Amino acid sequence: MAETGKREVDFADRNETDAAKAKRLKNDPNSDQDNRDESASANPLFGFKTTTVLRDSAREKNMFIHGKLNDQEAVIILEKTPIREDTLLEIFNGSRLKLDMRNDIYSTYQLQPPAHLNEIKTTVVCPATEKHVKKYLRQETYLVQETGEDYRSITLPYIQSQSFSVQWVYNILEKKAEAERIVYEDPDQDVGFVLLPDFKWDQKQLDDLHLIAIVHRRDIKSLRDLTALHLPSLTNICKKGEESILKRYGVAASKLKVYIHYQPSYYHFHIHFTALSYEAPGCGVEHAHLLSDVIQNLQADSQYYHSRSLSFPLRADQGLLSKFKDAGKL
Amino acid sequence: MAETGKREVDFADRNETDAAKAKRLKNDPNSDQDNRDESASANPLFGFKTTTVLRDSAREKNMFIHGKLNDQEAVIILEKTPIREDTLLEIFNGSRLKLDMRNDIYSTYQLQPPAHLNEIKTTVVCPATEKHVKKYLRQETYLVQETGEDYRSITLPYIQSQSFSVQWVYNILEKKAEAERIVYEDPDQDVGFVLLPDFKWDQKQLDDLHLIAIVHRRDIKSLRDLTALHLPSLTNICKKGEESILKRYGVAASKLKVYIHYQPSYYHFHIHFTALSYEAPGCGVEHAHLLSDVIQNLQADSQYYHSRSLSFPLRADQGLLSKFKDAGKL
Repeated sequence: MAETGKREVDFADRNETDAAKAKRLKNDPNSDQDNRDESASANPLFGFKTTTVLRDSAREKNMFIHGKLNDQEAVIILEKTPIREDTLLEIFNGSRLKLDMRNDIYSTYQLQPPAHLNEIKTTVVCPATEKHVKKYLRQETYLVQETGEDYRSITLPYIQSQSFSVQWVYNILEKKAEAERIVYEDPDQDVGFVLLPDFKWDQKQLDDLHLIAIVHRRDIKSLRDLTALHLPSLTNICKKGEESILKRYGVAASKLKVYIHYQPSYYHFHIHFTALSYEAPGCGVEHAHLLSDVIQNLQADSQYYHSRSLSFPLRADQGLLSKFKDAGKL
Repeated sequence: MAETGKREVDFADRNETDAAKAKRLKNDPNSDQDNRDESASANPLFGFKTTTVLRDSAREKNMFIHGKLNDQEAVIILEKTPIREDTLLEIFNGSRLKLDMRNDIYSTYQLQPPAHLNEIKTTVVCPATEKHVKKYLRQETYLVQETGEDYRSITLPYIQSQSFSVQWVYNILEKKAEAERIVYEDPDQDVGFVLLPDFKWDQKQLDDLHLIAIVHRRDIKSLRDLTALHLPSLTNICKKGEESILKRYGVAASKLKVYIHYQPSYYHFHIHFTALSYEAPGCGVEHAHLLSDVIQNLQADSQYYHSRSLSFPLRADQGLLSKFKDAGKL
């Protein structure tokens, strides 16, 4: 395991092998009780009582668990670690294998690698509040069909009533914050914008490249406000955004997808630039609109986004969903 | 570990603990050499020599490796297994933990679970051909912008020259194959269709629900062929497809996304119905078109898909990409 460079305390009980411990736990129905005192100080999760699994992903190999740790509410997040190329030799030579199936040139095994090569990243929130639990709970999602009229009678009043703050966006535009993160700026107050890395991108690899172009104009809340008058701004952002990303990161336009979220997560107009093969959250067809399509649609019909029905997903805990339900639209 | 119900042969050397074996391998630079004879019969992957990593996913925790096994070309696929709720008690009580970070109510650990709870699903293809290696190699992907004219001068001639067989589709429509899988049929030869589960969906859970509506008409190759004349067919499929899925699976229209691929994987017109929250491959904004958008676009402009530029991704090994390159379009 690579040195993490962080504080490290080893809680493991080195005198007992994993296999022996597991066997004991499996065979002794009272082991939880009997060994509490012995192991409590060594393993901080010993005795954790699961209340419920909040969410899990078979694809991503993670699980979010709500429960009690030493009588306190806690949330534990488990996620298996990626397979590392520099451990392959040891995995192939030092593992146990159990044959599952053999058919012609194909065979499958259950492989048990050395434990130190197969860790689970564990995050503990303790004590956890109800808000933490709610945050990690898998939320039901519904697809809403919003007509132009629905936007004006339901969505727009909701946005205005919430008065979501975009002060952090203004801080970026005014260089009061994150100025050192700016990759490119066109300072024109009509068609200009600021381009900077999205917070979720750590910039350590290009696989998940993700930048945001934030327009200087403050009067465009979302896709719904766009008309043909904004075409110079949109084509400017497309062209200069792609040029800047090629120059800074060496990634060509044909390796990018450039799109707009509807609904956006904040109501100051912005455009996403991500690596083409990166499945960024929110780049699904139900949530994203390709900039190239938006430009063509506005060229053909200035009122396209004023009048069309737009589909988007809403989670059960989003206030806007209850507004649509109240209006009998779902 | 649950009984797999398949042939099982235990290759593990039960006399040596994982930790001891790992330690030996790490400390002894000659271990690969020294232990070949001892372990070769017990561990079928012992001595596997990695040539190259073909592909890996940090998100999905898998890796596709090309190399040599006993002097034969081989491809090995490793994928960590999902975390199972029924193993949580043993994971929490029987693991080693190493503290990474502690900050207020948050702490993170590296957790080493008992090896038998943390397996890697391993698939071996041996001997592997060049075709296997190519199949698993991560392919560069490019975004192509196809104008209406590009479609007629590049894409359409390519499709026709390939004469892709859709006999398997005709077999379904004529009930010569998969008749028992049909969920719903509207037999009308103009606006009718057959609805059946996609092959990738095992129908064991609704999380990844995925059905395909295949139209009876044989003269629509793709989105590009649609005009306002097809609106009765599209609205019919939308309405009856959603009704059938509600009736059979209890999944409402607001929990579905309904979309069309462009480029499609076969050139007989079909529509995808998937669970809203399922990130099905190909449901990204660069590849999919929501049926509700397609219907509105055709209502406004019968020639919309005849004249518009459409963006889509192409892999480096797809013949159509070289046609676009030859035409200087990329």
